[in-house]
Amino acid sequence: MRSEQQAGAEQRAMRRALDLAQSPGVPLGPNPRVGCVLLDDEGQVVAEGHHRGAGTPHAEAAALTEAGAAAAGTTAVVTLEPCNHTGRTGPCTEALIAAGVCRVVFAQPDPNPVAAGGERRLRDAGIEVDLGLLEREARAVNRAWTFALEHRRPFVTWKLATTLDGRSAAADGTSRWITSRASRVDTHRLRSRCDVVLVGTGTIEVDDPRLTVRDEYDEALAHQPLRAVMGLRDVAAGATVLDGAAETVLLRTRDPREALAELHARDRRHVFLEGGPTLAAAFLAAGLVDEVVAYVAPTFLGAGRSAVGDLGITTIGDALHLRVEDVTVLGSGEQTDVRLTLTPAHRGGPTEKRD
Amino acid sequence: MRSEQQAGAEQRAMRRALDLAQSPGVPLGPNPRVGCVLLDDEGQVVAEGHHRGAGTPHAEAAALTEAGAAAAGTTAVVTLEPCNHTGRTGPCTEALIAAGVCRVVFAQPDPNPVAAGGERRLRDAGIEVDLGLLEREARAVNRAWTFALEHRRPFVTWKLATTLDGRSAAADGTSRWITSRASRVDTHRLRSRCDVVLVGTGTIEVDDPRLTVRDEYDEALAHQPLRAVMGLRDVAAGATVLDGAAETVLLRTRDPREALAELHARDRRHVFLEGGPTLAAAFLAAGLVDEVVAYVAPTFLGAGRSAVGDLGITTIGDALHLRVEDVTVLGSGEQTDVRLTLTPAHRGGPTEKRD
Repeated sequence: MRSEQQAGAEQRAMRRALDLAQSPGVPLGPNPRVGCVLLDDEGQVVAEGHHRGAGTPHAEAAALTEAGAAAAGTTAVVTLEPCNHTGRTGPCTEALIAAGVCRVVFAQPDPNPVAAGGERRLRDAGIEVDLGLLEREARAVNRAWTFALEHRRPFVTWKLATTLDGRSAAADGTSRWITSRASRVDTHRLRSRCDVVLVGTGTIEVDDPRLTVRDEYDEALAHQPLRAVMGLRDVAAGATVLDGAAETVLLRTRDPREALAELHARDRRHVFLEGGPTLAAAFLAAGLVDEVVAYVAPTFLGAGRSAVGDLGITTIGDALHLRVEDVTVLGSGEQTDVRLTLTPAHRGGPTEKRD
Repeated sequence: MRSEQQAGAEQRAMRRALDLAQSPGVPLGPNPRVGCVLLDDEGQVVAEGHHRGAGTPHAEAAALTEAGAAAAGTTAVVTLEPCNHTGRTGPCTEALIAAGVCRVVFAQPDPNPVAAGGERRLRDAGIEVDLGLLEREARAVNRAWTFALEHRRPFVTWKLATTLDGRSAAADGTSRWITSRASRVDTHRLRSRCDVVLVGTGTIEVDDPRLTVRDEYDEALAHQPLRAVMGLRDVAAGATVLDGAAETVLLRTRDPREALAELHARDRRHVFLEGGPTLAAAFLAAGLVDEVVAYVAPTFLGAGRSAVGDLGITTIGDALHLRVEDVTVLGSGEQTDVRLTLTPAHRGGPTEKRD
């Protein structure tokens, strides 16, 4: 039984490790975000580390390197179960054992069957192991990564911009801008948290979008998500999406499941779906939308393109229900939109699965 | 110059008078809601009064009656300029003068040309008058009444219930229930604050609604708004709206302006517009919607009746813009809706006119 003082120190260390995991500048990739803090007997911080992206040291290794010989006898507080396999870097379990760490506290068990087994290996080596501390928070940090491992496909966030009467364009096809500047800036922030931006060939033809992540001065960020275009039609050679500003892939299918499988095979974990009504309807009808971010402009058009196409729903009892997770007013004064974040009602979001 | 202490006492008294004005059980009618507090030299409350509906004593008269002889030398703090005309009751100005009140503080000048002139009459009688204290709050208490006097037509609140993709019914016409129970209860609360519930003949034919205000046990309240049905078609003799549960009027017009004129002539101040897409579009297109209350259900239908009909808008730049005044999540758990309260962006709401 740990003392209350020790438990308090470990909880504070885990919160710090969660912050470290989410350090700015860590690019999204196939790897999870992980933070690690080493504590001495007194609960004082000896060293910290976090993972900086694929090919760089894991969080535990970074902390152990910083600590050097002082790592012996410490407690390692880490947001994810230490890996037990050799990938581009060696197994963290062996590094922790070799350094003489005497206790490991981790938040989230590793859902990756390839890397799992860390807990067992540590216990076998005589190290005290405790797990589950702030697990919910840790799962939220790697929501899409966790989901992708558990469901063997990327997590899909569908973003739509709509008027209050459900229109995404006016009768003449014009749609710039339905939503306010604040919503557009927010969209780029969300794009930057995903590793794929996905549209259909129809959107390329109609809007010829850039699909890059840009800052408030419209400058492209250094790290860009993959641009993916799905559909059977060709993309015109002059389309902006082929401008080289970011990597682009053409997915020759109309089947959402096939498209996601191909993106998963490319180690993509989080799809930002920005397609038009037809593509959105295909994903919704297939049950392949895991989160909806709806920017609702306080406007009416009375006619024009619907935000979502036919879902094959004919009667009210079959309406597709979502759960409201968050409501935020974006912008100020006359220039406001309402952002709704929703998850399918038939199952909890990935962060809630084990709570 | 009043002392700070006196000013503080008068401000507290005005807040109390505003509360009194909004006492539960005061039926809405053609008269404003008014509260009055009499203060002595020390700033202590001598008596209070509020108006309880057409034909009953005005707030000032009620407070003076309660005070009796103690009214002499007091300051009357009242939410609306004392009236200066003889209606079903005598002028409040004369009652205040006769009672020996030496100072009158009121919040909102009377916008009613028939009853105005109170300030002048009081000053002429040698009474000290101060005005404008908490005027904004006082105008909000009688928002629709003030609007109706200033615009010579009732204030119109359009209520709609819609899916996130702007549908008010599924493809087969079913619409019960798009929104949650919490939204339906909230709708009745808002209905009870209006003095007309207005629909078109189409809604009567399709939904055969009761249009009464009911409590959470579906029991009709004692006081009911007028039910108004507009359109050129006949209402079937068996329609529920003709059941006598509340007064019903048929307005033989398709013109929103004509309908409002007729309701105004009947001393109605606040219309709760619950019509279908065609009627809503007619009011919106005519600029005759002063407030929108949108219950947005977190659902998608993909097809079905639109929440609003054709507005004659063809391009995005002409979209009808509104200003978000409030966003509230109603209900809990899986059963939530989002209520948006909006006002036309081209002009401030009536409570903001003088601020």
